[in-house]
Amino acid sequence: MGGVTEAGAMENAEELFRVAVIGSGNWGSVAAKLIASNTVKQSMFHDEVRMWVFEETLPNGRKLSETINQENENVKYLPGIKLGSNVVADPDLLNSVKEVNMLVFVTPHQFVEGICKRLVGNIRPDAEAISLIKGMEVKTEGPCMISKLISEMLSVNCCVLMGANIANEIAVEKFSEATIGYRQDKEAAQRWARLFSTPYFLVSAVPDVEGVELCGTLKNVVAIAAGLVDGLDMGNNTKAAIMRIGLREMKAFSKLLFSSVKDSTFFESCGVADLITTCLGGRNRRVAEAFARSGGKRSFDELETELLQGQKLQGVSTAKEVYEVLRNRGWQSLFPLFTTVHEISIGLLPPTAIVEYSEHARNLNLLQGAVQLH
Amino acid sequence: MGGVTEAGAMENAEELFRVAVIGSGNWGSVAAKLIASNTVKQSMFHDEVRMWVFEETLPNGRKLSETINQENENVKYLPGIKLGSNVVADPDLLNSVKEVNMLVFVTPHQFVEGICKRLVGNIRPDAEAISLIKGMEVKTEGPCMISKLISEMLSVNCCVLMGANIANEIAVEKFSEATIGYRQDKEAAQRWARLFSTPYFLVSAVPDVEGVELCGTLKNVVAIAAGLVDGLDMGNNTKAAIMRIGLREMKAFSKLLFSSVKDSTFFESCGVADLITTCLGGRNRRVAEAFARSGGKRSFDELETELLQGQKLQGVSTAKEVYEVLRNRGWQSLFPLFTTVHEISIGLLPPTAIVEYSEHARNLNLLQGAVQLH
Repeated sequence: MGGVTEAGAMENAEELFRVAVIGSGNWGSVAAKLIASNTVKQSMFHDEVRMWVFEETLPNGRKLSETINQENENVKYLPGIKLGSNVVADPDLLNSVKEVNMLVFVTPHQFVEGICKRLVGNIRPDAEAISLIKGMEVKTEGPCMISKLISEMLSVNCCVLMGANIANEIAVEKFSEATIGYRQDKEAAQRWARLFSTPYFLVSAVPDVEGVELCGTLKNVVAIAAGLVDGLDMGNNTKAAIMRIGLREMKAFSKLLFSSVKDSTFFESCGVADLITTCLGGRNRRVAEAFARSGGKRSFDELETELLQGQKLQGVSTAKEVYEVLRNRGWQSLFPLFTTVHEISIGLLPPTAIVEYSEHARNLNLLQGAVQLH
Repeated sequence: MGGVTEAGAMENAEELFRVAVIGSGNWGSVAAKLIASNTVKQSMFHDEVRMWVFEETLPNGRKLSETINQENENVKYLPGIKLGSNVVADPDLLNSVKEVNMLVFVTPHQFVEGICKRLVGNIRPDAEAISLIKGMEVKTEGPCMISKLISEMLSVNCCVLMGANIANEIAVEKFSEATIGYRQDKEAAQRWARLFSTPYFLVSAVPDVEGVELCGTLKNVVAIAAGLVDGLDMGNNTKAAIMRIGLREMKAFSKLLFSSVKDSTFFESCGVADLITTCLGGRNRRVAEAFARSGGKRSFDELETELLQGQKLQGVSTAKEVYEVLRNRGWQSLFPLFTTVHEISIGLLPPTAIVEYSEHARNLNLLQGAVQLH
């Protein structure tokens, strides 16, 4: 009888799932648009989608949050796209999560810890979280998973959503996919999938948080390698080989760090598809191409400043972080591509070293052996 | 004691492995070059590499085989590249395989049966074969594997070598990889790997002939899909998603046909890397792009004639063959991408259908279930 009562309660308006998007940059705004299109259609969700905005004053003197609410558009980070009239921007973090039980984190990764500190004690006890944040840090003692940080600081279950997701392409409703990684709670993962899925944005869920989340970070190291190949004018054949070796090292590295990581995750959107997108068009690829064209004579820092107008390059710093882990554990020879990317980026090796793997061929067999131990 | 004698016999000159390359087109010539660079260096192989040439008279009146032997270059199919002075072209098929115990097949696939008929009874009983031929036919009763055809007609063990192998890029020694698929004889596979591997051409062997060989054919269907996305100007995000869905269908189709096929094969060069190369630069992609740009108004046949100067498009015919298998077995709804490529190519659906998968989302879950049955 208790079960029936609970099921009945789910239908009450007060038991609807309420969503807040924490972050309002380019990807955060697209996420809010995707979510808002679903909450109005699916009865399990409350229509309103709260979006926490890190307040800014625009050149015209207006506040960003007010503009979003008046024009239903993030004029600064996603101009020209209507978010849905049910998206409500709020510059007050704690007010934005009031009554909310589905928290979507989509801020730059360096802000997560500070945000979580402020949220402790101010969220619903039954809240669930999901992180859309790519590019966590890989510390010597292991990667600092954003989902784990959120989960531990807020005592909530935290999934991740990653994939081949160029925000501006999804904003104009071009077909795309994404992968949700979850730990145990499949039902929560399916709820997140329902919240994000649209006819042009297909979401599937896999029980592998770490694998999915590591894909989103490690792909940037491979994109540096792919960019070097482009800059050396080596052609598609070599580029494909380098991307494949990169994918293998992503898989092997993730599995050595977390024995729970599954091979199949790398066939998902977060794996092979995001890698392809990033190696074809991303900014890591672009700066690495320019680096190789300069013969390694100009530094990544210099090229980043020149080419990216203030956007930051994650691949080079991730390569450094990964290298520290490899050195610390004596795994360098098992990961020739990751190792070589870092050594090229600091000028220890010339850009052409990215395609010199024959001496590593035996080590690659060792790697397969090492990974099969798990 | 017998073992010692056998090992000793291996060192005798008469027991050296002798190689013939059957075929002398673009890829066959590059294969001969790779092999010839190894046979002179490795003592287990006889230096000389025989290459069977389908004789042609060149515009200057000279015979192709004579020109190859005089200039050490295939002036018609691989101009500008020295093959190695130990490559000996021979227009006589049976003479070219005399004393040979390693047969490398690299002809257009429609010639294999006729060649094998002529070879029956004229090869060494201890001969081994390898097929470099991509694009076998997929008949309604199942794929007609070239390796199986060779193996059964000649009663020999037959491996395959596939991968992201654009002949002209490997000819100029740009870094690349390849995958050997073998059935049981790991020792034979390792010997083939030694015959082909160079510092710029890394070869690994996996015990999955069917998986490796099917990759080489099915990728062309995915390349048609990728070309359509290019022609629709959908961007890298969508293209990556379509390539990923294509890879998944390649894997699922192969596994449904052969329960022995391994997931890991699709992470090898023959899988993800060859798919990337083919979807970035191949001719299937190119013609499909033109098809989509015409809004599907011009036929594939017409565009093939216009764009490819006599080269043939394999993706469209493979898509048709695959479709027949799917229809015959009632699997169409499990393979939305393969099915859609065919239906677009015959004008039943518009090119835009390539990115309309939401209705298939449930079927994709069915597919995962079906494949997990194996």
